[in-house]
Amino acid sequence: MKVSSTADLFSRRAPPPGSHPGLFVVPARGHPPRIRALIYCEEHVEEREIADMEALSAAVAAQGVTWIDIQGFGDGEVLHRVRDTLGIHPLAMADVANVPQRPKVEDYGAHHLIITQMANLEDGFLIELEQLSLVLGPGWVVSFQEKPGDSFDGLRERIRAGAGVIRSMGTDFLAYAMLDAVVDDYFPVVEALGAIIDELEDEVADRARRGTLARIHAVRRTLVTLHRLLRGQNDAFTHMLRAEQGPFSSAVRVYLRDAQDHAQQVLEGLDTSREMAIGLMELYLSSTSNRLNEVMKTLTVVATIFIPLTFIAGVYGMNFEHMPELGWRYGYPAVWGVMIAVALGLLLWFRHRGWLEREKGRGQRGDEE
Amino acid sequence: MKVSSTADLFSRRAPPPGSHPGLFVVPARGHPPRIRALIYCEEHVEEREIADMEALSAAVAAQGVTWIDIQGFGDGEVLHRVRDTLGIHPLAMADVANVPQRPKVEDYGAHHLIITQMANLEDGFLIELEQLSLVLGPGWVVSFQEKPGDSFDGLRERIRAGAGVIRSMGTDFLAYAMLDAVVDDYFPVVEALGAIIDELEDEVADRARRGTLARIHAVRRTLVTLHRLLRGQNDAFTHMLRAEQGPFSSAVRVYLRDAQDHAQQVLEGLDTSREMAIGLMELYLSSTSNRLNEVMKTLTVVATIFIPLTFIAGVYGMNFEHMPELGWRYGYPAVWGVMIAVALGLLLWFRHRGWLEREKGRGQRGDEE
Amino acid sequence: MKVSSTADLFSRRAPPPGSHPGLFVVPARGHPPRIRALIYCEEHVEEREIADMEALSAAVAAQGVTWIDIQGFGDGEVLHRVRDTLGIHPLAMADVANVPQRPKVEDYGAHHLIITQMANLEDGFLIELEQLSLVLGPGWVVSFQEKPGDSFDGLRERIRAGAGVIRSMGTDFLAYAMLDAVVDDYFPVVEALGAIIDELEDEVADRARRGTLARIHAVRRTLVTLHRLLRGQNDAFTHMLRAEQGPFSSAVRVYLRDAQDHAQQVLEGLDTSREMAIGLMELYLSSTSNRLNEVMKTLTVVATIFIPLTFIAGVYGMNFEHMPELGWRYGYPAVWGVMIAVALGLLLWFRHRGWLEREKGRGQRGDEE
Amino acid sequence: MKVSSTADLFSRRAPPPGSHPGLFVVPARGHPPRIRALIYCEEHVEEREIADMEALSAAVAAQGVTWIDIQGFGDGEVLHRVRDTLGIHPLAMADVANVPQRPKVEDYGAHHLIITQMANLEDGFLIELEQLSLVLGPGWVVSFQEKPGDSFDGLRERIRAGAGVIRSMGTDFLAYAMLDAVVDDYFPVVEALGAIIDELEDEVADRARRGTLARIHAVRRTLVTLHRLLRGQNDAFTHMLRAEQGPFSSAVRVYLRDAQDHAQQVLEGLDTSREMAIGLMELYLSSTSNRLNEVMKTLTVVATIFIPLTFIAGVYGMNFEHMPELGWRYGYPAVWGVMIAVALGLLLWFRHRGWLEREKGRGQRGDEE
Amino acid sequence: MKVSSTADLFSRRAPPPGSHPGLFVVPARGHPPRIRALIYCEEHVEEREIADMEALSAAVAAQGVTWIDIQGFGDGEVLHRVRDTLGIHPLAMADVANVPQRPKVEDYGAHHLIITQMANLEDGFLIELEQLSLVLGPGWVVSFQEKPGDSFDGLRERIRAGAGVIRSMGTDFLAYAMLDAVVDDYFPVVEALGAIIDELEDEVADRARRGTLARIHAVRRTLVTLHRLLRGQNDAFTHMLRAEQGPFSSAVRVYLRDAQDHAQQVLEGLDTSREMAIGLMELYLSSTSNRLNEVMKTLTVVATIFIPLTFIAGVYGMNFEHMPELGWRYGYPAVWGVMIAVALGLLLWFRHRGWLEREKGRGQRGDEE
Repeated sequence: MKVSSTADLFSRRAPPPGSHPGLFVVPARGHPPRIRALIYCEEHVEEREIADMEALSAAVAAQGVTWIDIQGFGDGEVLHRVRDTLGIHPLAMADVANVPQRPKVEDYGAHHLIITQMANLEDGFLIELEQLSLVLGPGWVVSFQEKPGDSFDGLRERIRAGAGVIRSMGTDFLAYAMLDAVVDDYFPVVEALGAIIDELEDEVADRARRGTLARIHAVRRTLVTLHRLLRGQNDAFTHMLRAEQGPFSSAVRVYLRDAQDHAQQVLEGLDTSREMAIGLMELYLSSTSNRLNEVMKTLTVVATIFIPLTFIAGVYGMNFEHMPELGWRYGYPAVWGVMIAVALGLLLWFRHRGWLEREKGRGQRGDEE
Repeated sequence: MKVSSTADLFSRRAPPPGSHPGLFVVPARGHPPRIRALIYCEEHVEEREIADMEALSAAVAAQGVTWIDIQGFGDGEVLHRVRDTLGIHPLAMADVANVPQRPKVEDYGAHHLIITQMANLEDGFLIELEQLSLVLGPGWVVSFQEKPGDSFDGLRERIRAGAGVIRSMGTDFLAYAMLDAVVDDYFPVVEALGAIIDELEDEVADRARRGTLARIHAVRRTLVTLHRLLRGQNDAFTHMLRAEQGPFSSAVRVYLRDAQDHAQQVLEGLDTSREMAIGLMELYLSSTSNRLNEVMKTLTVVATIFIPLTFIAGVYGMNFEHMPELGWRYGYPAVWGVMIAVALGLLLWFRHRGWLEREKGRGQRGDEE
Repeated sequence: MKVSSTADLFSRRAPPPGSHPGLFVVPARGHPPRIRALIYCEEHVEEREIADMEALSAAVAAQGVTWIDIQGFGDGEVLHRVRDTLGIHPLAMADVANVPQRPKVEDYGAHHLIITQMANLEDGFLIELEQLSLVLGPGWVVSFQEKPGDSFDGLRERIRAGAGVIRSMGTDFLAYAMLDAVVDDYFPVVEALGAIIDELEDEVADRARRGTLARIHAVRRTLVTLHRLLRGQNDAFTHMLRAEQGPFSSAVRVYLRDAQDHAQQVLEGLDTSREMAIGLMELYLSSTSNRLNEVMKTLTVVATIFIPLTFIAGVYGMNFEHMPELGWRYGYPAVWGVMIAVALGLLLWFRHRGWLEREKGRGQRGDEE
Repeated sequence: MKVSSTADLFSRRAPPPGSHPGLFVVPARGHPPRIRALIYCEEHVEEREIADMEALSAAVAAQGVTWIDIQGFGDGEVLHRVRDTLGIHPLAMADVANVPQRPKVEDYGAHHLIITQMANLEDGFLIELEQLSLVLGPGWVVSFQEKPGDSFDGLRERIRAGAGVIRSMGTDFLAYAMLDAVVDDYFPVVEALGAIIDELEDEVADRARRGTLARIHAVRRTLVTLHRLLRGQNDAFTHMLRAEQGPFSSAVRVYLRDAQDHAQQVLEGLDTSREMAIGLMELYLSSTSNRLNEVMKTLTVVATIFIPLTFIAGVYGMNFEHMPELGWRYGYPAVWGVMIAVALGLLLWFRHRGWLEREKGRGQRGDEE
Repeated sequence: MKVSSTADLFSRRAPPPGSHPGLFVVPARGHPPRIRALIYCEEHVEEREIADMEALSAAVAAQGVTWIDIQGFGDGEVLHRVRDTLGIHPLAMADVANVPQRPKVEDYGAHHLIITQMANLEDGFLIELEQLSLVLGPGWVVSFQEKPGDSFDGLRERIRAGAGVIRSMGTDFLAYAMLDAVVDDYFPVVEALGAIIDELEDEVADRARRGTLARIHAVRRTLVTLHRLLRGQNDAFTHMLRAEQGPFSSAVRVYLRDAQDHAQQVLEGLDTSREMAIGLMELYLSSTSNRLNEVMKTLTVVATIFIPLTFIAGVYGMNFEHMPELGWRYGYPAVWGVMIAVALGLLLWFRHRGWLEREKGRGQRGDEE
């Protein structure tokens, strides 16, 4: 899902209203599912491509931890068979396939469903979200995502290499490790958003263009969307940490708490960014209003000086037969004198009111901060 | 109820203050009630038109699940007899008939009352709300709505066809299925609202007209109203999921949780839309202010250049007898020279201040996003 | 209390700071107290005017439910004697007499005090609030209000006629019935406020005058005040419904829940109205800004076209002896040609920039909504 | 502490960071402490000036309730000795002396510390806050304040006269009575603030000056500060009412609840005032924008009428040799005719657009409200 | 971390996403770690420079309380060895080294981790934050900070001198004393921010420049950031005070509550400052709008007076052959008379509308507050 407009926030792939619960819809031109299994225990690691349901049954029945990685929802038939083979609850499967759903964790008795959203920033403002769904069963974890490509290469490498503690831990640690990678991926996204806000601040102060406004608005939409997402994510973490019957052992909860802490850090930063983006709009308005002031001062100074002068010139351009001043020897220089005096008087008055001190423009901001 | 103005938010059909509790009011020109029964169990399905109270008593006493569907409140006599035949509490019946009430669920001992609002978007901004009231008794569900026509055709078809699990479940699943259909109907409504906001964004950026403002305000009212409604709906769901003694079995709660999740998704999207609609008003103001700036710059540039020139022309239009310049051979071209120099000087100055760089207008936004 | 200004929000009748608790102040020119008793049980009803304390003692000691209705606080002596005769706690009596207090319910052991505010809308914006205080003792309810006249005539009629269940219920149902009537009276008030907001919306869009602003501000004050009041009222209801030892039996709580639901409905509507009133101020500002734009465009178009033309005319009004153009045969028509060309060129340019398309004004809004 | 600027909100008297906890700082030119004791029981009252620590020990050991009233912190030595004589915890004593602290109640085992702030409004906007600290030990209450003068004269008089129940109650009732007097003193303060807001409303609508803005801002700061304070005060009350082990007996809690209710009433009124003060700023901005509109309409009407006329006059002021119109017999009146026609046409057009209807100014507001 | 831009809020030092949990990153050009031990009990104090891990083991094994003070993270090797020697959990160590983290307290079974941020204000707006991490083990406290220099000199002196109770208390009191010093250091920071807001208020009212806006925005960012930080700090305090199994004994909790109270005081002050900073932006906008009004009034008064006069002069500058007025004896003075009459009439009208009363500028504010 790309969030390039407000309407995107509501679009989801869903069966028509009134369908029976648990029905799901596959994308028209989706990628065909590719299923891979990564089976490991403390002693060994094994990777398999899963071609049919027998291979899937075999993989989940293997010793140790089995990670089934399914990418692509293009074939509903395959998804149905995966569901039935693994005994996934129809509602859980519908949440997996009818993307996007809110981040959440749900207990379906025999297995748990964890839904989270992976974020990517594209072209500055647009966030590309992709749902990652984890189903945790006894001894296996299935991860579903609609498009190929993920952020778990580091994790796979660690499993293969046996680095850290992961090989000696269970499925709950694997799930944690994936969630942790998802949260970590938010940091570059929000950092980029922070940089855009900084850029917009400079733009507003120095050389605001009309496009600036639309960009501030777009950043704000992105921030609001991400904020909402991460609040849901955080609630899901809290739920996982509190649930008595949850899939996470107390040893893994220490790690999970750490991941939540990072999600919380992202959330708080987004909160701050949001407040700054609102401030940006006000800054823009004040800044525009400021510029208008400057423009109007220029007009007022010029017009207020020359309009009376033009009037004086106009008076002596009249064609009355009896205008004594016109015949005076020094009438012309005298009028010039009056005009210069009026102009100087007005200039002094403007200076007194501070209208001639032009606001320093572009260079100024750098000095002050 | 159509929400086309703020006053609509408070209008409800109610007996005069001081009437005894449980009294209800029927609409003056309401549809006459049409009562249908749908009786089903795992083995068979049966549909009946209910003409009198004996038929009603027989239907609710039938084996399996009985769904009594009452559409139209035009005849108070019939409603009273339905109330008495089914033993519905007078306060519950008053809430059913005195529409609109807040979404809620209430326990009246022998039966439960669930109130929800179905939404429809008409002509873009207006939402048309209609109350759906469910009374859940032992083995039967009565659904009340004021106007004919509902979103339950899919549901009826599923019951007739025996699709999914519905035929093997009880009254609580039937109630869930109706609530689920109501929530699902919100998605197209809010998606349309999101599209309107997007359209307004473009309008504000490109070609804001005065009507734009009124439309932003109207969208905001619709969003605020829907948001309030869905918050109530969500509270009702939470109540249903938590209530120990509630009408929902734990098997059905898994489904109900799913429906709540969708309601929550709508609510969060509405929250975001609301923030964007507030942002739109600010965008509009900034955008208008921007345009004013452009207008004033044009005026200032033109006036500031020509007012001094006109003054110069005015000076040499004076009729003094002794104006030596007038007799000079090259006086006229010299004055032209001065005037051109002044104009060029001012132009350079304006250019230096950046006032001549006209803001790019319409085409620009597309490039930047 | 009339809420016509912010200062009114803080004014209350109270003894000087440092007085001992339980002291109360009677209004200088208050109505003399009129005390009436309404005694009823399932079989009979009786109404009495109470002239002295013996009659009061007799009334409260009577069989069935006794409703003592006291209107007018003008005589402190009488209030003190009522207090002592009925054994009302001095703090409770002070809250009754030192109006206004917040809506609340308090347990004084032997009796309960319920405070609520009755609302009336006067002249559109002003709300007139009057405190209704109920003291619930064993077998009796005393209602206190400062000014004669209440909304309980329907209730009295129901008691006299024995309509509904009231005659077979206790004091708690009587208290509920009064609270219910108070809450019902808020509906016309808030409906009127909604209508005012709609009216102001039209006014802002079409023909905003300076007085419009002051009216928006006044409506906002009224909404904020009512909102605060109803939140207090709702808290009091919640307290009554939760209190284990409260005066309300579980049979009456079903009714009380219904009254709270109505109070909640009013509160939510007020919330929405408040948000719309804030939006109105922004609408006003944007609308004004829009109009300024239109005014300035007119000035700019006219000035930008005629200022250069006036300059050209000024040039050929100069009196130089050597101005070859002046002698040309077609100089005059040529200048006209130049001037017309300049004017047309500027007009085309303005048209290109869209400044000549005048905003449609008054009729427009109707079309778009 | 006077709150005349934002910096004041953070200034407190405190030892340098890193000092050991419990250290306190005495003001450089503070008043020397004056210690008085008021000892009472149901039968008798006695007042003593306390000169040394022996007298203090004797006073607190006396029968009945002892109220030690200490005013002035100018002598650190005396405060230390009081602390040690009465066994006050060093942290409690530091909170007493290092003013200001937040309103709070703390349990130090042998005694309780209650901190509250007394408010006074000076010169309209400025609030003068003074901390009142109460230490409640067994049979005694010590009240500390930095400057002489308090609001407890009424209370002292009641103790001396034995009015009300105070003489028959314990130390907890004395503490309540002081807190009640402090809360009651907020009413005139907030009433004055309400009056200022009303005054500012009139000022904004009628004759807004630049100083008006600064005053709105100052009132807002005062409201925000008081609000924060009273929220703290309310939390402290809630804490006192809930604490199982608190110093307040259940008989006194009835009274304390009443005082909290008053504090809550002040808090809610402040909340409303705050919202109105924010609304004032918007009102000001809209009002200014309105006035600008009026100014610009005047300019536009005048300029738009006379600029074309001046152009026409300029045309016939040109000196071309061949200008046939100049020689026409009725050229001059014809030009006047054209000019009058143009002027009238423009006037009609302005009238049609509604620009000539001048906004009614000052007198209007009174009529509409 | 310096908070000079929004992007800074998200920058943190972290290993690449997908790394195994507990990995940490050392700064490229960080200070080499310097490790000092301060060992004390009631009887004696001893200070040691720790050069290797054996010395560290010996120090933590010593009698009494051992405070290990580590400043500088430049050498990852050393940090790893410290971690392993003291048995610190890898996640805890990662939080210590991957700065910044949110303020928090975490229980790792054998030890507790407390993270807090020390604040410093630089050049007015910029806050410099540095993370202080405390690890509390049995009998020892390790404090980590990235740069040399801290606020604990007073604390060290108190330990050396045996002032107060610190020498007789355990590790929890030492941790409290460090947290207390950190909180106390916020007071000068926030006081300075308050002073800046006051300064900006004066600037906005008197002589707002364009740089003023950028400074208001920057202060707001600083306030939002500090507020977020202190809210986290407060949550951490609440957690420490509530945790049943926490490292703090009940004797130390009395002190901790006091430190939390100070943190709460800072937080509330920041809240107020934030609201004032938002108000400042509005003040600025209103103030600018006010100034524009003044400028436009000047232009309008001058233009409205002189444009009609110039027109009159233009009329009599026309060259028609038949203009009877031109030949009149007193035509010229009569025109002057008309022009003066028009000018006076307009001046009276402007005066009537109040446009000639110039707003008093700079001196005014002082009088009114």
